[in-house]
Amino acid sequence: MKLQLALDVLTSEEAVDLVYRTREYIDIIEIGTPLIKHEGISIVRCMKKLFPDKSLLVDLKSMDVGAYEADFCFDAGADLVTVLGAADDRTIEGTLESAHRHGGAAVVDLINVRNKLPRLRAMEAMGADYVGIHSGIDQQAAGASPLADLKRLSKVGTVPLAVAGGIGPDTLNAIVRYRPQIVVVGGAITGVADPGAVAQAMAETLRAAA
Amino acid sequence: MKLQLALDVLTSEEAVDLVYRTREYIDIIEIGTPLIKHEGISIVRCMKKLFPDKSLLVDLKSMDVGAYEADFCFDAGADLVTVLGAADDRTIEGTLESAHRHGGAAVVDLINVRNKLPRLRAMEAMGADYVGIHSGIDQQAAGASPLADLKRLSKVGTVPLAVAGGIGPDTLNAIVRYRPQIVVVGGAITGVADPGAVAQAMAETLRAAA
Repeated sequence: MKLQLALDVLTSEEAVDLVYRTREYIDIIEIGTPLIKHEGISIVRCMKKLFPDKSLLVDLKSMDVGAYEADFCFDAGADLVTVLGAADDRTIEGTLESAHRHGGAAVVDLINVRNKLPRLRAMEAMGADYVGIHSGIDQQAAGASPLADLKRLSKVGTVPLAVAGGIGPDTLNAIVRYRPQIVVVGGAITGVADPGAVAQAMAETLRAAA
Repeated sequence: MKLQLALDVLTSEEAVDLVYRTREYIDIIEIGTPLIKHEGISIVRCMKKLFPDKSLLVDLKSMDVGAYEADFCFDAGADLVTVLGAADDRTIEGTLESAHRHGGAAVVDLINVRNKLPRLRAMEAMGADYVGIHSGIDQQAAGASPLADLKRLSKVGTVPLAVAGGIGPDTLNAIVRYRPQIVVVGGAITGVADPGAVAQAMAETLRAAA
């Protein structure tokens, strides 16, 4: 199980600082959707240069022109991108084709997809590298959590899962029981006084469960 | 009916050049989704400074944290943003709340929403400023067009409509019959040798039909 740090800040300075403070404990650096929209592709180049040994994911959440958006991220040094499960199949196919052409991988994010099971199976058939089980921040504000979906979907498919949505030290043990390949953590690390300490504790929980 | 130029290029230089060549004929400058992801918020500030008299739309296509993403665009000078109709209602409410707090407006884009009629009515009830009838570029490649949806939905709602998806000089007359408030044109203007001439011709068609 890998630990992905979701950089949910807006500026490159804040993002780079958070990675410096947690880099010993995280496996994947995630350029969050608001961050790529605010800073543009320069933040991808910057992270690749500063942290060449980390995997780098751009949370594009593409809804159209999947290949066009993925291409410029992989060209700038990304290893992974995301595309929305709510997108047209052609968009997802474009993202996957771009990822594989560049030697990278793509996560199909099922955020706000109503019938997740048939979509998971369709993504598996399409050759998705990962499927994301994800409760959005706006959904978390109404009490949503990805745990129930993870519990249900981890049993039925063979595609690796990434799970995201309000995960912190208190909820990590419940998540790791279902052995997702990627655990995505944002605010529980980025919003505390000592991000390194929380990242270390969460990385140890993942290692102990491996 | 207003003419919106969708800047479907990746660099600020190309985008600014396209606006200079068409500015007499367009009403709304659209920072396309790949463009905002590639260039970041600086392209919004740049366009506002160069073309302060034009309306400026950022095609955010937000799927989460609607208010967070909209806020930084309005703060940088945007007049309009988009949010996905496929998003959670809370995300759309956040975008609308941000828009109205800043004296701006928001378009709820129904791209890849399967049951468009109930979603249109829900968006109307939620106070959406515009609803977007939109066939994506990846969908157009498979023959999709927004015309059938526009024909059907223009009769049932009271919310102003924006229509997008492969619209060019040849298809504009069929579109204007349904009197959408905003007609979005991308490649038919951005992909030709003389963007100004095509923009002028399309603006004249819109004026003649008004």
